[in-house]
Amino acid sequence: MTTELSPDALSGLLDRARRDYQDLAGLGLSLDLTRGKPAPEQLDLSEDLLSLPGGRHTSADGTDVRNYGGLQGLPELREIFAGVLQVPAGQLIAAGNSSLELMHDCLVHALLSVVPGAESRWVDQERIAFLCPVPGYDRHFALCERFGIDMIPVPMTADGPDMEAVERLVAEDPTVKGIWCVPKYSNPDGACYSDATVARLASMSTAAPDFRIFWDNAYAAHHLTDDPVEIADLLAACAGAGNPDRAFVFGSTSKITAAGAGVAFFGSSPANLQWLLGNNAKRSIGPDKVNQLRHVLFLRDADGVRGHMERQRALLQPKFEAVARILDAELGSTGLAAWTSPKGGYFVTLEVPDGCAKEVVRRAAEAGIVLTPAGATHPYGEDPRDAVIRIAPSYPGLAELEQAIAGLAVCVRLVGYEQRAR
Amino acid sequence: MTTELSPDALSGLLDRARRDYQDLAGLGLSLDLTRGKPAPEQLDLSEDLLSLPGGRHTSADGTDVRNYGGLQGLPELREIFAGVLQVPAGQLIAAGNSSLELMHDCLVHALLSVVPGAESRWVDQERIAFLCPVPGYDRHFALCERFGIDMIPVPMTADGPDMEAVERLVAEDPTVKGIWCVPKYSNPDGACYSDATVARLASMSTAAPDFRIFWDNAYAAHHLTDDPVEIADLLAACAGAGNPDRAFVFGSTSKITAAGAGVAFFGSSPANLQWLLGNNAKRSIGPDKVNQLRHVLFLRDADGVRGHMERQRALLQPKFEAVARILDAELGSTGLAAWTSPKGGYFVTLEVPDGCAKEVVRRAAEAGIVLTPAGATHPYGEDPRDAVIRIAPSYPGLAELEQAIAGLAVCVRLVGYEQRAR
Repeated sequence: MTTELSPDALSGLLDRARRDYQDLAGLGLSLDLTRGKPAPEQLDLSEDLLSLPGGRHTSADGTDVRNYGGLQGLPELREIFAGVLQVPAGQLIAAGNSSLELMHDCLVHALLSVVPGAESRWVDQERIAFLCPVPGYDRHFALCERFGIDMIPVPMTADGPDMEAVERLVAEDPTVKGIWCVPKYSNPDGACYSDATVARLASMSTAAPDFRIFWDNAYAAHHLTDDPVEIADLLAACAGAGNPDRAFVFGSTSKITAAGAGVAFFGSSPANLQWLLGNNAKRSIGPDKVNQLRHVLFLRDADGVRGHMERQRALLQPKFEAVARILDAELGSTGLAAWTSPKGGYFVTLEVPDGCAKEVVRRAAEAGIVLTPAGATHPYGEDPRDAVIRIAPSYPGLAELEQAIAGLAVCVRLVGYEQRAR
Repeated sequence: MTTELSPDALSGLLDRARRDYQDLAGLGLSLDLTRGKPAPEQLDLSEDLLSLPGGRHTSADGTDVRNYGGLQGLPELREIFAGVLQVPAGQLIAAGNSSLELMHDCLVHALLSVVPGAESRWVDQERIAFLCPVPGYDRHFALCERFGIDMIPVPMTADGPDMEAVERLVAEDPTVKGIWCVPKYSNPDGACYSDATVARLASMSTAAPDFRIFWDNAYAAHHLTDDPVEIADLLAACAGAGNPDRAFVFGSTSKITAAGAGVAFFGSSPANLQWLLGNNAKRSIGPDKVNQLRHVLFLRDADGVRGHMERQRALLQPKFEAVARILDAELGSTGLAAWTSPKGGYFVTLEVPDGCAKEVVRRAAEAGIVLTPAGATHPYGEDPRDAVIRIAPSYPGLAELEQAIAGLAVCVRLVGYEQRAR
């Protein structure tokens, strides 16, 4: 990213950046790019949910959805999402309103019960470690931190995690019990796992007999182009490779219907499914089946999901285009930054010169533009290069977003040229 | 319960019981009294919930309930239930659809995080034990069993658990970390904790600094008479006695609105609240606030809850009256059984001669009447006297219920007289 600049040229660029930053600070902005929240217009697409299921309260098999029971969730809702999540409906659980909860609970149950293939409860083992492709999702890392699970960063590539590193680490160390993956339109870099990556994850030799891939397929249907990315079917690949219990698949409608009031899913092998259902049976008498019926009536089928996601895309794509357009115009010729052009998902990753990310985020905050803390994309909040910034363009209106990204670009120029001038 | 009978009289009674049982078996019944599920007519009382919140999607403070966030739940819903659950709204969490989940999660978090007042995580301690008033709720016991928490039964009285036994056990044994309580219209015996019991629970000396009362106030508003029972405010009593962090209060609308799609609550001291919210923050980005708004619009206020529970009572009271009437007519003069006449809640406890409960349940099942397994009201499913049967009258229609209770009475006579004749 570095370009040679004469001292005079640099001084001029720095002066301009300082003036621009002063102007920016003077605007008194209050903009928030921190989290991947749907915008109100996106939620409006599901407005009908708010009066559903209306007069109806029975599922296809005649179950009264208002009453207790049905731990695995409504079959007809699982049918709708089986294709999206690449899990047979019979191996899918439709649960509560949050897939993060399901990930948390899988960790809890593995800590406190013996997961299929394990020799003992994870809590009884000296050390447990997870591989964390970086940049990655801060809430995954927070779960590891909360449970004292050591995190081992592995670099992301355009095809998924660096599989050489992954294969080496899992082969030699039986304390490595899992890996976090966001396989499609990854958070935050938008990467999509290649078929080769999926095949290697499914078939690699692991020292731990109870190794698990936490496959957070959060953006399975969240395309931003005419060319939806298809990834390989991990669950089938694991079964085919003789490792049927390796994959825990997660998904939700949080960014399809409603972020707080959607339905989350878990899919896995029959053995893992029985393990989770057995543990869940102690915890709950069943999920909110009324909300599940509501989603069935609203989405109808897989085509309904596709159509709905087209309408989501129509709202999101202009925002991602604006981010790319402004970053290109403001930073494209500076050599100070690189950024992703994701084909789906919720994030753009901005890479600034090493040692600059925290300072850019600090300066932006001072100018009223709140970004996800630099480092959040790495375990323990520590980005060793201090270079990665996650941009979440979904929530602000287009005009606000444009203002925020233009402001962010000013901060990148300011901090980047300041560093060069040192 | 024993009455002297001449051999001839006993033989006649046994013959009649055998004939009655044969007739019963010939009916080919298929009746289920196992679980405390609301009947469809009860759920119909909340039919309006199914089209709410309709066009609305903002809470009183302008929060978009469809989006992420709001870990403590909607303030206006917490206001409605503050009085019912005797917890200030600011110390109440409105959560998901199940209070059992909250109890499970409190145990998980105490096992894996340090609960306020504890010296270490419970999972790091050699032994953890809970006091279990018996008869009690099988799902409480199942949670203990699932996490390897030892259960120490203590007898229930009409005023709550035998406090002499409770005080002695908690005073001497630091591994005793908790007690399960259903303080009002207890499951299954309908007992209501006296003010003295509440005061003693709040003020007793416990060897464990991190002792917790799991106060499952499941039937707080579930009255069956004109004379609603009021219990003392445990949270206030604990604070007053200098043990502010002792109480975990649980409740839900499962048997108010919808059994699968209601809202669950947790209430406690500020320190416990922060502890749970902090742990929950790692697990979830917030509860289903749309469902919470739905409940606010439907129930409106504390009076709305009261009125709704009057309508519930109108459906339930005739069922409880039928149980009492039939048991009295069929068993009142036999000396073979005693039963509770609860002023609220969901259960009647039937006590049969020692050693007869399992056999009564078995015979009833053979005649097509399924009851909760005998022993389920005790830890590990072991009722040492084999005498307690839980009757759940809520779900069947009145005619079915009458048939089932009459059939059950036949089984009690059969098994009871068989035992005497031995």
